[in-house]
Amino acid sequence: MRKTIIGVIGAGQVSDTGYAVAREVGRRIGEGGAVLVCGGLSGVMEAACQGCNEVGGETLGLLPGGDAAMANPYVTLAVPTNMGHARNVIIAHTAQALIAVEGEYGTLSEIAVALKLGKPVVALNSWPGIEGVIEASSAEEAVEIALQLATGQGEA
Amino acid sequence: MRKTIIGVIGAGQVSDTGYAVAREVGRRIGEGGAVLVCGGLSGVMEAACQGCNEVGGETLGLLPGGDAAMANPYVTLAVPTNMGHARNVIIAHTAQALIAVEGEYGTLSEIAVALKLGKPVVALNSWPGIEGVIEASSAEEAVEIALQLATGQGEA
Amino acid sequence: MRKTIIGVIGAGQVSDTGYAVAREVGRRIGEGGAVLVCGGLSGVMEAACQGCNEVGGETLGLLPGGDAAMANPYVTLAVPTNMGHARNVIIAHTAQALIAVEGEYGTLSEIAVALKLGKPVVALNSWPGIEGVIEASSAEEAVEIALQLATGQGEA
Amino acid sequence: MRKTIIGVIGAGQVSDTGYAVAREVGRRIGEGGAVLVCGGLSGVMEAACQGCNEVGGETLGLLPGGDAAMANPYVTLAVPTNMGHARNVIIAHTAQALIAVEGEYGTLSEIAVALKLGKPVVALNSWPGIEGVIEASSAEEAVEIALQLATGQGEA
Repeated sequence: MRKTIIGVIGAGQVSDTGYAVAREVGRRIGEGGAVLVCGGLSGVMEAACQGCNEVGGETLGLLPGGDAAMANPYVTLAVPTNMGHARNVIIAHTAQALIAVEGEYGTLSEIAVALKLGKPVVALNSWPGIEGVIEASSAEEAVEIALQLATGQGEA
Repeated sequence: MRKTIIGVIGAGQVSDTGYAVAREVGRRIGEGGAVLVCGGLSGVMEAACQGCNEVGGETLGLLPGGDAAMANPYVTLAVPTNMGHARNVIIAHTAQALIAVEGEYGTLSEIAVALKLGKPVVALNSWPGIEGVIEASSAEEAVEIALQLATGQGEA
Repeated sequence: MRKTIIGVIGAGQVSDTGYAVAREVGRRIGEGGAVLVCGGLSGVMEAACQGCNEVGGETLGLLPGGDAAMANPYVTLAVPTNMGHARNVIIAHTAQALIAVEGEYGTLSEIAVALKLGKPVVALNSWPGIEGVIEASSAEEAVEIALQLATGQGEA
Repeated sequence: MRKTIIGVIGAGQVSDTGYAVAREVGRRIGEGGAVLVCGGLSGVMEAACQGCNEVGGETLGLLPGGDAAMANPYVTLAVPTNMGHARNVIIAHTAQALIAVEGEYGTLSEIAVALKLGKPVVALNSWPGIEGVIEASSAEEAVEIALQLATGQGEA
């Protein structure tokens, strides 16, 4: 009854390639029957939500501000945490596995918190050289790994 | 595309009557097509999630701890905030209207935060004499009022 | 070596009488050798910090926003939590006893969280009829009770 | 009247060399008239607090748990946030400049959040290759840089 939740992390500004990749990641998460959790804003977050929505998936947006109206249009469940960057820590707790697409300092912070919590982190053209991160070469591969590790580890 | 979210608040310990009322509240929220958000634990929270699940509704549990496994079995989307009582503030931000069933200090705190944020609060046998709280006499009436006010105010 | 910390809670808008009372509360906290913790903004918070400063006391301001510059001028240690109302929960955890002066919904929320955490709460013309709150009739009496209960309960 | 606050970040487990370095960092922060903020636990955090205490400095410990008794013995002001790793974000907001000593994923996360918030980060044998981090070769140099940048940028 508990749904599998996969996190997608990345910056609010993204390259065209990154947008396409994140959208494909979202699509495959939805097709895999999992819920997508992200920071609910623009860029990588919006792309992933859009993809997930296109296949009828549920998208949970943990927003930094206190107003649901700030969520991107593809967030189906808006959670306005009003906790700024601390919401990244909640995303890391909520996701059973995370996929990082590109990203800057905020994404690096989230990758590090997720690893600290023992969550699997799959990277697509994101921060290089962080020990413990699993590098993937396509959206398909990234989601396949994330879903497998999320299921393997159970709910925690 | 954005779903309406109704909060149900109340203590982890509840009377038999309170359990039945909260379950009926959950059922009617699900029937109304809204998502239920709560603290994800036992008592009023579990009862409401059970009712909502019985009619196929979605239940979002914002847990005080960091482990999704602590959620009651009727939570479909577990968000382990690891923020203790501060998660109550996130519930108040997330819900477009809240229904309080019975409750003690934690519930009082949540009612007060919700009112501070300008969210409608409907009470069923909860804290008496708090100005601004709307008293209801049945689960049916409470959910009807909550759904109406949630929709009326838009997403914020 | 660990310092005793007393919380002062109340609204950002306060009556003239309330300002004078809160300032006297702050003064007596400083004279008692304790550190004052509060929300760091205006009204009751500013009055208490001013009083504490006048006798050389330390004032810890747990701000709702992320910018230390928003603290009132009498805060010596600014902690910009960027967590909005959730910072009230941190104040309740930090203070070994709390004194409420007047106040509205935010103060009620904080009183309830503090009681939930088992912290002593002393009230000066604040929310009436909350079971567990100790009513005091003067700043002198309120601080005397708070200091005694804070010391009595040790650090936790 | 507002005090300058310097953050010290690093892991709860530290090498002997790292302990000595962190203690010297704490000592020089105290001698520089600044308040030290850290996560309040063991390892680098305890070493830095010890050094700061030895010269009469104030140490603010933003604890992950809800109990002040978990702070190391050199914390003079314990703030039990009960927010787990999210307290790292509060440390980044609170410090006007931060010094990282050694460290693992938690420290990396904190460095990234601090950079995201535009705070100067000075590193002593910490994560290599993070753009924007200022490398220092001694505790003396690290604190000198941190104090200068903290003062230069004003309170925010």
